[in-house]
Amino acid sequence: MNFMSDTAAPAHPAILQALADANVGAAPSYGSDAWIERAREALSRVFETDLDIWLVSSGTAANALALATLCPPHGSVLCHEEAHIERDERGAPEFFTGGAKLSLLPGLHARIDLAALRTRIAANQPDNVHESPAHVLSLSNLTECGAAYRPFEIAERAGLAHEAALAVHLDGARFANALVSTGATPAELSWRSGVDVMSFGATKNGALGCEAILLFGSARQRLADLRARAKRAGHMPPKMRFLAAQMCAYLKGGLWLELAGRANRSAQDVAALLQKHGAELTHPVDGNEVFVRLPADTAAKLKGAGAGFYAWPDGSFRFVCSWATSPDDIAALAAALS
Amino acid sequence: MNFMSDTAAPAHPAILQALADANVGAAPSYGSDAWIERAREALSRVFETDLDIWLVSSGTAANALALATLCPPHGSVLCHEEAHIERDERGAPEFFTGGAKLSLLPGLHARIDLAALRTRIAANQPDNVHESPAHVLSLSNLTECGAAYRPFEIAERAGLAHEAALAVHLDGARFANALVSTGATPAELSWRSGVDVMSFGATKNGALGCEAILLFGSARQRLADLRARAKRAGHMPPKMRFLAAQMCAYLKGGLWLELAGRANRSAQDVAALLQKHGAELTHPVDGNEVFVRLPADTAAKLKGAGAGFYAWPDGSFRFVCSWATSPDDIAALAAALS
Amino acid sequence: MNFMSDTAAPAHPAILQALADANVGAAPSYGSDAWIERAREALSRVFETDLDIWLVSSGTAANALALATLCPPHGSVLCHEEAHIERDERGAPEFFTGGAKLSLLPGLHARIDLAALRTRIAANQPDNVHESPAHVLSLSNLTECGAAYRPFEIAERAGLAHEAALAVHLDGARFANALVSTGATPAELSWRSGVDVMSFGATKNGALGCEAILLFGSARQRLADLRARAKRAGHMPPKMRFLAAQMCAYLKGGLWLELAGRANRSAQDVAALLQKHGAELTHPVDGNEVFVRLPADTAAKLKGAGAGFYAWPDGSFRFVCSWATSPDDIAALAAALS
Amino acid sequence: MNFMSDTAAPAHPAILQALADANVGAAPSYGSDAWIERAREALSRVFETDLDIWLVSSGTAANALALATLCPPHGSVLCHEEAHIERDERGAPEFFTGGAKLSLLPGLHARIDLAALRTRIAANQPDNVHESPAHVLSLSNLTECGAAYRPFEIAERAGLAHEAALAVHLDGARFANALVSTGATPAELSWRSGVDVMSFGATKNGALGCEAILLFGSARQRLADLRARAKRAGHMPPKMRFLAAQMCAYLKGGLWLELAGRANRSAQDVAALLQKHGAELTHPVDGNEVFVRLPADTAAKLKGAGAGFYAWPDGSFRFVCSWATSPDDIAALAAALS
Repeated sequence: MNFMSDTAAPAHPAILQALADANVGAAPSYGSDAWIERAREALSRVFETDLDIWLVSSGTAANALALATLCPPHGSVLCHEEAHIERDERGAPEFFTGGAKLSLLPGLHARIDLAALRTRIAANQPDNVHESPAHVLSLSNLTECGAAYRPFEIAERAGLAHEAALAVHLDGARFANALVSTGATPAELSWRSGVDVMSFGATKNGALGCEAILLFGSARQRLADLRARAKRAGHMPPKMRFLAAQMCAYLKGGLWLELAGRANRSAQDVAALLQKHGAELTHPVDGNEVFVRLPADTAAKLKGAGAGFYAWPDGSFRFVCSWATSPDDIAALAAALS
Repeated sequence: MNFMSDTAAPAHPAILQALADANVGAAPSYGSDAWIERAREALSRVFETDLDIWLVSSGTAANALALATLCPPHGSVLCHEEAHIERDERGAPEFFTGGAKLSLLPGLHARIDLAALRTRIAANQPDNVHESPAHVLSLSNLTECGAAYRPFEIAERAGLAHEAALAVHLDGARFANALVSTGATPAELSWRSGVDVMSFGATKNGALGCEAILLFGSARQRLADLRARAKRAGHMPPKMRFLAAQMCAYLKGGLWLELAGRANRSAQDVAALLQKHGAELTHPVDGNEVFVRLPADTAAKLKGAGAGFYAWPDGSFRFVCSWATSPDDIAALAAALS
Repeated sequence: MNFMSDTAAPAHPAILQALADANVGAAPSYGSDAWIERAREALSRVFETDLDIWLVSSGTAANALALATLCPPHGSVLCHEEAHIERDERGAPEFFTGGAKLSLLPGLHARIDLAALRTRIAANQPDNVHESPAHVLSLSNLTECGAAYRPFEIAERAGLAHEAALAVHLDGARFANALVSTGATPAELSWRSGVDVMSFGATKNGALGCEAILLFGSARQRLADLRARAKRAGHMPPKMRFLAAQMCAYLKGGLWLELAGRANRSAQDVAALLQKHGAELTHPVDGNEVFVRLPADTAAKLKGAGAGFYAWPDGSFRFVCSWATSPDDIAALAAALS
Repeated sequence: MNFMSDTAAPAHPAILQALADANVGAAPSYGSDAWIERAREALSRVFETDLDIWLVSSGTAANALALATLCPPHGSVLCHEEAHIERDERGAPEFFTGGAKLSLLPGLHARIDLAALRTRIAANQPDNVHESPAHVLSLSNLTECGAAYRPFEIAERAGLAHEAALAVHLDGARFANALVSTGATPAELSWRSGVDVMSFGATKNGALGCEAILLFGSARQRLADLRARAKRAGHMPPKMRFLAAQMCAYLKGGLWLELAGRANRSAQDVAALLQKHGAELTHPVDGNEVFVRLPADTAAKLKGAGAGFYAWPDGSFRFVCSWATSPDDIAALAAALS
């Protein structure tokens, strides 16, 4: 009955098996192997466009490398005030960019408010030498509050960014969950809506540890810069085939969408269950995360029954489902609530 | 017949199996799991001392994090002029330290020359504000030329460093090979000889991707700093258990020493074979690497026969054996040479 | 009739003369000259305590060096959301610290709100590896809105910081103006109220370009680190005597307080004049800055008459007086307003 | 009788006077003043080409900003192993570039050896992700050993650099001395020979503290980047007019060349004098610096007589003349030698 985080889940057996399948004989190291090219091709098919990639073992690495590739040290990155890159990465964007700033924006459910974004971009002064002008807009889908942006919402924000010559980054640590929830295609929810560079997560949805950085369109020109930065950050491990094999298995036969669908459905069940027992949703359940205010004593009761979940700074609670959340987990939660 | 690098080898089946064994149910993420503590305990036993650790997926990350923990941005690191941290890490030490310098020393077979080290340390002026004073001595064992330091050689160099208040780092990407070759214990070849912080490699010797940073003695006070730096460098992936499980399996029952012994013996076979055909060793074969000058046309002949090996910048060639080098590989090399 | 900024003012003749007086014969370079020690002694007398110093040519350098000396790259600095270090220094604190974060707090008149500070500090989690914990509290006096903190207000905030093991930095670019306004002594408004490290400005109050970084109490242990950082940032120019001579002349005979008093009185005159013509003060006039909302057309009328002042982002206007603001300037403003 | 360094000399009266002349009324701050544009125009005339500039107060700042504008964090800078940027700037290039490397080259009298440069550039592998490829060649004129490059020597080296797509930086801390010595024009010794960006020093030759960064040709596109980096490094002090006024006075009427000529002639006198007393020159005296081996006891005798000079790490001694070295200084040296 662990609803702490989807990062607590094990890896899916098919992805584990892919490591064994890749573990045959010698292979060129540092990313010159055949698996990487296969992963690139698989991602190109899924996203319906030719693209360039790099693979890393953590979402923090994916985000920070992506941002460093887009933002000079004297620039800034627009993001939501609750974004993972602001709250949970120990200054990784500042480290990788050489000291760029994050410029914070408000918005319900951790979606960047469109009007606030418009105002902020209108106030951007690239020629004012005293300020760090915005060079990048970073969106998260799912947001840090479990809400999804639909394609037109991405497009609206990306459009404002591009008009002002900002690049658009998407933190897609839970992109699969957002896809399933919105019914959009990967292309619609990324480059067709204006995303230039994307962190495409697999770890939270069944991989052992694998996140892809995707470069779309003209951002593909940054590939050499991206690889150089990855290398010097220690994110070019010798046996890259074991990263690439995970990505291939993750995408194969739509496994990733099946797993995300499973997690999302579990979250709906958890949300319904909690609401039945007096909980109040604080954010829409667009993916695999449920944020609720709980009636007095409920949290303590659940903890006592051995349930794992997370106390949010604002007094609410977060329950996260994963591909591995089982009917038994939900039944145990129901029992604990009764 | 791939002698390109030990990084081209697959993972040992027992280490792969350990991933499957760890893939059971939910586990706390970001390094709070039980596997990490088990890895720490196993390393403490192997090194015969209580120690602190962090685990990363590449040797570059291990070295750069270790150095950043020991050297301020306005300091410098003494290392051999052919050291991996100088030649092959794309400025990772400079990046992680915030701009510290590497100060290069000569020495045969990539062992730092003792007299040169003494002279350099004597010239160190911590109070001269214009220079970046040395704060760290970094040794590599095996060296970049495949030679081993014996414990007293480490101790001589570390002793000079400590007298001048420098910390001592050891790049042990091929530490297992050096151990087998010298017959020393892990303790003798590290902290008992004065090593403060160590990069302890497993990837080149059978792991999928796992290197430990070991903090000995008073360097253990740097653990919080090390973990903070690892986090912001993207080297705290969510499912850390898959790193820790590799390390546990690597050490279990002395697997690591068995694998290194196998690689070292293969290297002896390769060296003998090449010498029989006119090759001249340029460095001692203390571990799993063979550096040779080849008779005219030999390199071309071998390439033509499909052998993989590496042309070194100085005109010599490097043949690397791994745990996976088989009698068939060596037989094929023999055939190609005839 | 230039009220744009006190940085637009010329240097006071006595400070200019000090350059000529120092321009005699050879002197040791890079800060080993006699003038620096004289400046240190003069500052010690003024602040009634033994202290250490470094001198730089810009406030940005003073602030960024001070913060880098106090905050590790994986930490954060608490400051007001309108602080100069956040708004106007192009990411200098992030650059000098190696990527530390600024964590923003609200408060009227750019004074950090005491309750907000208490809440923020209570939420500080130094052991949470995912966040950049606060290591420093940075206050500005005058604030960015021209308000002054009195000693007890500094002490309240510094007390909260120290309880949580944070160091306290004071941006005193307009410290002289705050002193005159509050009637406090330099000691009362700095170390006696808990300030550890201070940027002590002279440029805006009559120098050509000179700011001191002052280290009080146990922060004096950071002097070697501070000097090393200054050197590598290019803030150890060869002929340091010309910085030190400015500081000596600035302090001599209380010139600095006389100049600040003059500027403050001019600001009172400007404030009264503008209010007489319908302006509304948006912040207290505690120093040499006047922030006002102007009646319709007044700004345009004044611009037309050649007055220099600054449009603030919130629609108000800033008029700054300096030591060089003359009765003629104020008479011209009065004429323009009529 | 101070021959320690030209940085120990006072400022020339005409340059000091220029500060007073600029100290009239209000002026826009942060580099929008009229003096900067005048300095740019004066430099354009002197260098016979339109160019862009920034002004800073130290040579370290000039060099580090120039290099950061040309070299990405994952690149390297080729320079002489005794270059000031390597030996005497406390890692400033590494700090400003975000961790780029310096790659050292040998050469007599601190001139980069042409053959060594050719070999190094031929070995440059921009596509090898493991190395930090060279992006910049940095030359110094005068070199760190007081020798001058003539235009064709600059052109040979710059030509090799440009063929390999490297930019060329010139550290011209003592450019005036090199000009006088070689008889070349400023254009011939800079952009006409292939220099892209230059640190143009005035401090060692009569200014209080003023160095210009000059951008030639296509490097002028880097101006916005340069200014942003200067700002965040604290090298955009408010009252920039006092930097610009120095540069204008330095160039006016050829003062700079007159002063350098004076210093160079003094150095010839000192060299002749020392040689007469048994000293052996270790480097050509192409400018204002004299490097010698002294007969036994001579150094002690001179120290005893109160002469200031510098013991070089290799056992030789450096005597530096400046614009302010007087016949009396040289007579005193002669007396001390007798």
